[in-house]
Amino acid sequence: MRSVVHLSSGDEAEQETALAVAENMLADESDSIDEVAVVAQSGGIEAVTADGEYADRVRSLLDDGVPFKGCANTLETASLDESDLVDGVETVPEGAVEVTRLQNDGYAYLRP
Amino acid sequence: MRSVVHLSSGDEAEQETALAVAENMLADESDSIDEVAVVAQSGGIEAVTADGEYADRVRSLLDDGVPFKGCANTLETASLDESDLVDGVETVPEGAVEVTRLQNDGYAYLRP
Amino acid sequence: MRSVVHLSSGDEAEQETALAVAENMLADESDSIDEVAVVAQSGGIEAVTADGEYADRVRSLLDDGVPFKGCANTLETASLDESDLVDGVETVPEGAVEVTRLQNDGYAYLRP
Repeated sequence: MRSVVHLSSGDEAEQETALAVAENMLADESDSIDEVAVVAQSGGIEAVTADGEYADRVRSLLDDGVPFKGCANTLETASLDESDLVDGVETVPEGAVEVTRLQNDGYAYLRP
Repeated sequence: MRSVVHLSSGDEAEQETALAVAENMLADESDSIDEVAVVAQSGGIEAVTADGEYADRVRSLLDDGVPFKGCANTLETASLDESDLVDGVETVPEGAVEVTRLQNDGYAYLRP
Repeated sequence: MRSVVHLSSGDEAEQETALAVAENMLADESDSIDEVAVVAQSGGIEAVTADGEYADRVRSLLDDGVPFKGCANTLETASLDESDLVDGVETVPEGAVEVTRLQNDGYAYLRP
């Protein structure tokens, strides 16, 4: 099974929960989760910035094979650049389109 | 691909994000999104009221072909009437049932 | 049709909305919803504790056939035990994995 975590909130508690959910799914002993992807947009983009509070946890998840996609529309609105994101975070033109695409490919949706 | 945006939050920042997500999916250059629908319920109903802060953006999205559905259960609880909503917003008996129906019809779910 | 409500927020207004959505789907006159399940994790676990504000509503939903699943990872992090939850709430190792499993089984996802 595959899951996409939608990291769209600017609320730090919700960002923390979203990352914890991704970590816990990877660690789950049932081994039933084949892939977890994270799409960051809107207020959630802060959680994947290189100087953000969660940068180390994002790096660790990337190292564990979790793809992160940052929304280019959000970057533009927030006057950020791809280089402001944690190394390894890819960008997609619009986060919500990517989340739609992943659900169409069979990913379950999680917005903790 | 089709997407449903669940506008259920009374938080203005989340309401703004939900509408921005709908707008950005329409504008996406990949042209991969065939329809975006919005279901408003609970605190999210405020965002689709005729005298609400986002009325003009809702009107513009309606003009662009985005169907909006307001939850009749929420209207009753909030002592609102269909006539309090932006012209063109339809009502459904229960928003969550409509969101379920749309997902069963193949819509991806987004709750930004 | 079947729906899973993801009760992941520590925000009381969002917890109240999640329970109201489950109640309204059960009561919906269209009778199109065959099952509503609730998965509680992260801050949402508070809503299903035996001494929590919503314990009576959880009991009533359980009586009406709504299965509740509490996340064991969350219980451990919060230093809670299964015995702290409303009687009848089951536990699952990781809430997000359960939500993924239910979506794979055809449940629509709702995170009000």
